[in-house]
Amino acid sequence: MVRLAKVIVKPDQLEQYKAMLKEEAEVSVRIEPGVLTLYAVSEKENPTHFTILEIYADTAAYRAHLQTRHFIDYKTGTKNMVKSLELVETVPLIPEMQIKQDSAALRLTK
Amino acid sequence: MVRLAKVIVKPDQLEQYKAMLKEEAEVSVRIEPGVLTLYAVSEKENPTHFTILEIYADTAAYRAHLQTRHFIDYKTGTKNMVKSLELVETVPLIPEMQIKQDSAALRLTK
Repeated sequence: MVRLAKVIVKPDQLEQYKAMLKEEAEVSVRIEPGVLTLYAVSEKENPTHFTILEIYADTAAYRAHLQTRHFIDYKTGTKNMVKSLELVETVPLIPEMQIKQDSAALRLTK
Repeated sequence: MVRLAKVIVKPDQLEQYKAMLKEEAEVSVRIEPGVLTLYAVSEKENPTHFTILEIYADTAAYRAHLQTRHFIDYKTGTKNMVKSLELVETVPLIPEMQIKQDSAALRLTK
């Protein structure tokens, strides 16, 4: 299951939002084996515009993710920071060309 | 260097475009060490809308990529298939949380 989340954040909430998204992405990839990738970028020319590439092992892994404490904390904590959110279901062009996020590196930075 | 390429393809050229993008992405990741990721998705509801997450080791790797035969073949070959192209420079939220595309899997499928 591969999705793009497109998030626009309120400018005065940008730093707080980034801190919360960082925490959520790090914890998810580190402790949820079914969360294969949560790779977030912001646009250089529009720093409040984020795109998150989300790859889940399957829909069960995605549903489990929605029930985690860290996701719920992120979702409720950022509710008033987000100006708009678009979730775009996608199809990978080359399913066998997988990407894997390096959660080992995360542990080193803790 | 992390970028999003947003491509909209002419509907009647969709299959030909996908074949050319597949070839280009596969070859680039397989033979160019500086091309860390070329991960392309199309939108389920708008199959002609592609987003490509492009991660290059540095700008030198990107410039070298532009000179490769496979990139030039893709660029010239798809010129008339593309309705619009937007290149968005981005900043990764968590630079140390790298992703790596699995080019070993590609060799198995060849």
